[in-house]
Amino acid sequence: MNKTSVIQEMDLKYNLHSWSAQAGLNPHVITKAEGIYFWNEEGERFYDMSSQLVNMNIGHGNKKVIQAIKDQADKLPFIGPAFALDVRAEAAKKVVEVAPANMKKVFFTNSGAEANENAIKMARMYTGRYKMFSAYRAYHGATYGAANLTGEPRRFASEPGIAGFVKFVGPYAYRGPIEFKNEEEASKYYLTLLREQIEYEGSETIAAIFQESVVGTNGILIPPKGWMQGVRDLCDEFGIMMVCDEVMAGWGRTGEWFAVNNWNVQPDMITFAKGSTCGYIPLGGVLVNGKIADHFNKNTLICGLTYSAHPMGCAAACATIDVYKEENLIQKSKEMGVVLGEILEEMKEKHASVGDVRYIGLFSAIELVKDRNSKEPLVPYGKDPDGIMKKILGMLREKGFWNYSHENIIIVAPPLIIKKDELRDAMKIMDNVLDFVDEMMDE
Amino acid sequence: MNKTSVIQEMDLKYNLHSWSAQAGLNPHVITKAEGIYFWNEEGERFYDMSSQLVNMNIGHGNKKVIQAIKDQADKLPFIGPAFALDVRAEAAKKVVEVAPANMKKVFFTNSGAEANENAIKMARMYTGRYKMFSAYRAYHGATYGAANLTGEPRRFASEPGIAGFVKFVGPYAYRGPIEFKNEEEASKYYLTLLREQIEYEGSETIAAIFQESVVGTNGILIPPKGWMQGVRDLCDEFGIMMVCDEVMAGWGRTGEWFAVNNWNVQPDMITFAKGSTCGYIPLGGVLVNGKIADHFNKNTLICGLTYSAHPMGCAAACATIDVYKEENLIQKSKEMGVVLGEILEEMKEKHASVGDVRYIGLFSAIELVKDRNSKEPLVPYGKDPDGIMKKILGMLREKGFWNYSHENIIIVAPPLIIKKDELRDAMKIMDNVLDFVDEMMDE
Repeated sequence: MNKTSVIQEMDLKYNLHSWSAQAGLNPHVITKAEGIYFWNEEGERFYDMSSQLVNMNIGHGNKKVIQAIKDQADKLPFIGPAFALDVRAEAAKKVVEVAPANMKKVFFTNSGAEANENAIKMARMYTGRYKMFSAYRAYHGATYGAANLTGEPRRFASEPGIAGFVKFVGPYAYRGPIEFKNEEEASKYYLTLLREQIEYEGSETIAAIFQESVVGTNGILIPPKGWMQGVRDLCDEFGIMMVCDEVMAGWGRTGEWFAVNNWNVQPDMITFAKGSTCGYIPLGGVLVNGKIADHFNKNTLICGLTYSAHPMGCAAACATIDVYKEENLIQKSKEMGVVLGEILEEMKEKHASVGDVRYIGLFSAIELVKDRNSKEPLVPYGKDPDGIMKKILGMLREKGFWNYSHENIIIVAPPLIIKKDELRDAMKIMDNVLDFVDEMMDE
Repeated sequence: MNKTSVIQEMDLKYNLHSWSAQAGLNPHVITKAEGIYFWNEEGERFYDMSSQLVNMNIGHGNKKVIQAIKDQADKLPFIGPAFALDVRAEAAKKVVEVAPANMKKVFFTNSGAEANENAIKMARMYTGRYKMFSAYRAYHGATYGAANLTGEPRRFASEPGIAGFVKFVGPYAYRGPIEFKNEEEASKYYLTLLREQIEYEGSETIAAIFQESVVGTNGILIPPKGWMQGVRDLCDEFGIMMVCDEVMAGWGRTGEWFAVNNWNVQPDMITFAKGSTCGYIPLGGVLVNGKIADHFNKNTLICGLTYSAHPMGCAAACATIDVYKEENLIQKSKEMGVVLGEILEEMKEKHASVGDVRYIGLFSAIELVKDRNSKEPLVPYGKDPDGIMKKILGMLREKGFWNYSHENIIIVAPPLIIKKDELRDAMKIMDNVLDFVDEMMDE
């Protein structure tokens, strides 16, 4: 376990840490990170099995990205967003080139939350409508607009909510109200509900439907076959902007550059962040299709931030995109995802505590239950009175496996550079810990 | 003038630029920046007389900050916000140490908008109240919460607004409804209005009063004597959090580390960004007093972002704060501010088009009027039908003086490293252009 240290003490004295009561914190002091690993002050090594916050897709310490950052720092670390700049032009070009073919321009931000904030505004400006649809269980960020899109408790600190932000129930077949025969049936069911809600909210008032292409932290909820195209069709029918939040799911995470590619669907906007620079420098952005881009030729884009298209972020993005290509990481994510899927299916077979496993590329979840038949979650919604999930995470960490959990769900999303042996070795730790969970359930 | 170039063409093809209709853009391509200057592709040099967007307080190309960025890139460019880290601890300590004495902890963000977003949430969590007061003419950022604090048209794209966000009229004596005898009288007048509004909104529902300590882009509106203490007293009387937005005004801009120091007032929270790293790497944050910090020991801080306390931003902040100290820039801002004030007063005396000049440290504005007696603005509110302000800015730029304007107001806020001769030389350009404005008025 990590001991208190001078750095930890100073850190806790002066910093407020995210999503926590500060008194209970005992953060590891990190001193080094390389590839799929990071080390604490005591020299303990951890597999980074969540790529930090599902952002370090290319892993830690990538020399090419670091060099690009250093070169840009020497050359021109900052110039205001009104100016043109080599690296600003190149980054936008590179992002557009790997995006779905209908995407034409990008508005760069610092973060995913800011990307969603600007997508909200663009959808309003483009359509002249004010309502925003988004799904329960989705997470879109913690600033006011992004938080009001968010369909889970991290929204509550940003309420009273914004007028016109409406939530729908997105597909989650494992916990659907009925047993679906197949994916298509699940899609049809949820699309029927969505259509009814669109009609009863007044389709002509709805600017956009936001969704995480694959719901991330809330459980790696992969849309069933037919869902994405169904949403596209509803948006086309009613003149609604389809916005895909790919802050987590983008940049190779699901085995495609962007997750929507898995279903060959083209949204009107894509928001992104994390994997675009893998966190080496903060960067996010909104990709827009040609119609929206054209709209803002004549109409003022009422969006702006001091650090839009920050030169350092743009330099990091250029290098990161090169790394994805040169190291063939999108394809590797797909291939390693097959291996991960096999491992997870084995675990589901073996461990009574595993109710469901979901995986696409290197984006996966293990959903823990008390009983497979009743599907009763291992911990009740929003609570963990006996600290069970904390205990499970603690055991993983003690064995050198670092990731995070949400409700009764364990997220596994390693860097895309992970090798087969490394993945198998790491997942053996998970296997051992799940043995313990099974036993705990028997007691 | 700047010509089209390959880079400009690529930039405009793929980027959406802030606050603009894209078709009219003809951005300079910037290739180099050093000290108080930057250069475009054609080799034209500009005085950076607005420090870009009032963020490059230490000027361009600072070797110490660049080296710190390069070192951190080599060492550990990113680790998640849950972990402790040497540079994360040091940056927070350094920020707290230069802040007003009651400030105890910092929550780091990427930007000023995000800082205000988190201050809104903290004020709500701490007080259990939901209403936010802020001033007309204030700008607090463009994300939904920050934009709803904003008291000028850049809010409108983020409406319908958030319930409970209330605007008051802040002090602006030059355009007050009566002629005030002195600053104290002006403060008394505006405080009376504010008290009435607090009472009629229900003081027990108000979580916070936000204000820019010195209103920035909307005209360098410097609070009259007694205002800041008056707001502090009202906040104490009614249990309201006093939040000072020092995104522009902080970090030496007004000749003090933070602008509130000019009036010896201690707010409950200070939000900051720009000058904390001068834009070399994006960083912002919320400083909180001891009571708020203590509150979040036991109560969960429902705030979070992937890039909170980003190692690269923290490294840049540490070095930037060292630069302020080693180069004595806070004091220099105060001293050079006296020179700037003298120059501006001379201009006011000389130029009939100058209605008012306002300055504190190196933060200043020239307010242009058609007539000094009537105070009629040179361009009407929200409009510039004949493109007069654009023409004035264009003339300044053609002569190598880069800054920006807002409504009928020209902002002058050079890097704090500017020398007396440089300041006088640059302001001669302004003097020449104001000759032209005077002539234009005579026509």
